[in-house]
Amino acid sequence: MSSSHTHPFDLAISLTGENGLYRGETSPRYANMIGPFGGISAATMMHAVLSESKAEGEPVAATFNFSAPIKDGSFEIVASPVKLSRSTQHWMVELRQNNSTCMNATVILGKRRDTFSETESPFPRVPEYESVEIMPSLGLPEWVNNYRFRIIEGGFGPTFGQHDDHVGDSKTVQWIEDHPPRPLDFTSLTSISDIFFPRVFVKRQTVMPVGTISLTIHFHAQDEDLAEVGTHAILGAARSSTFSKGFFDQVSELWSPSQKLLATTSQMVYFKD
Amino acid sequence: MSSSHTHPFDLAISLTGENGLYRGETSPRYANMIGPFGGISAATMMHAVLSESKAEGEPVAATFNFSAPIKDGSFEIVASPVKLSRSTQHWMVELRQNNSTCMNATVILGKRRDTFSETESPFPRVPEYESVEIMPSLGLPEWVNNYRFRIIEGGFGPTFGQHDDHVGDSKTVQWIEDHPPRPLDFTSLTSISDIFFPRVFVKRQTVMPVGTISLTIHFHAQDEDLAEVGTHAILGAARSSTFSKGFFDQVSELWSPSQKLLATTSQMVYFKD
Repeated sequence: MSSSHTHPFDLAISLTGENGLYRGETSPRYANMIGPFGGISAATMMHAVLSESKAEGEPVAATFNFSAPIKDGSFEIVASPVKLSRSTQHWMVELRQNNSTCMNATVILGKRRDTFSETESPFPRVPEYESVEIMPSLGLPEWVNNYRFRIIEGGFGPTFGQHDDHVGDSKTVQWIEDHPPRPLDFTSLTSISDIFFPRVFVKRQTVMPVGTISLTIHFHAQDEDLAEVGTHAILGAARSSTFSKGFFDQVSELWSPSQKLLATTSQMVYFKD
Repeated sequence: MSSSHTHPFDLAISLTGENGLYRGETSPRYANMIGPFGGISAATMMHAVLSESKAEGEPVAATFNFSAPIKDGSFEIVASPVKLSRSTQHWMVELRQNNSTCMNATVILGKRRDTFSETESPFPRVPEYESVEIMPSLGLPEWVNNYRFRIIEGGFGPTFGQHDDHVGDSKTVQWIEDHPPRPLDFTSLTSISDIFFPRVFVKRQTVMPVGTISLTIHFHAQDEDLAEVGTHAILGAARSSTFSKGFFDQVSELWSPSQKLLATTSQMVYFKD
């Protein structure tokens, strides 16, 4: 295991600065087809909020909007408090290049307390992690090499065959872990929220231009739940409700191996076929 | 049917102002237990964006964050463009009272185009609208009187009996329409996205302090889909994935009577038991 200071993920989300103004650099290791992987940019913005001296509590909800492409190179992150109360904190974050906003986000932190707790969503029926083969990353964007995907259902890529006329369903179930291993925290969970292949690729089994326009993450885990996961793989299940006239949604659940629901996500994605 | 100028909903979301700066007043008809119903505030912010002279396209995604209680009385809405491109527009909106932010929102508009389209979520099996009784609104907050709820499954309230020790599931399926009838549009659909009873009320069949902290709506409909609905009731299905240490989520689907998926929503809610 890499130490947290030299892990590629920590290097990718590293920032200099303080008091709401930070500087970072895109990481070639997390490059997507064009510009950086969206998950790493979201994680970097989450990192900025969690670095604030006034930040208290743990992430409860966050929405990341992708308003303009991020170019490879340096960027600024501006994090500002909207409202800091005892139980919840509302933050606003922007990622800028050349004084132009590329992403904006709202991040809500909250203090968790003992209350009635129950999970209604069922944990997917899945084979053990060890029994599922690691997906080859050959031919996929660079960022994929920072993860190990073990696809149980709903894969995409050369190994799954590509059929232009394929219309199955868009559901994917997969084990996911950082590679090299890294203990799970709220920044890496934020990044993992965006690791699923675009649903339309799975649905149609072909590549087409796509771009996430908005990603929402609802966090259901506490620090101690993430600590319990440690470097183990987590289980992700993603599907689309609908593909409709140039946009589709993706909803996903991220589960710990001990069947704790860590986060639920939803995103809207632009596509062109 | 009321004309659109005198319908209580239109009066409630009415604004004066232009060029990004608007003024409005909370409507006693849409009062919640304390302050206004969250849906009407979100709808008013959506109305501000759609009133902008530069606004183009239809709502695709919106997130509304509730950072401080809104007091009865007047408020300001500030709407500013983050990025206006040919295919999508990103807007930032704030609702303020006394120069303090009560809500902030990000709204994304987009132009829909003919593409591959398919809905994977199944339309719920439900009885005809006419065969389901209208829920009595007696004892419920004032805003409920502006809607007709026909609860098919997962009700809450005196007519359903209250049991402190009840733990069923949190799913609700219901027909919803404006009362008096009003043709559906993106502002009323925004408001309807927040009409479901707090899931913990249904789950526990008892009332407790709750507050939505963040509401995300993904729109899948076009103007013509909403026009087709007109004044007919739409079908809503809501559930919770998990109740976890002071917060729960709610995910919902809103369907036209002709089985078109109009919107999917997710929200995080604070609760205290």
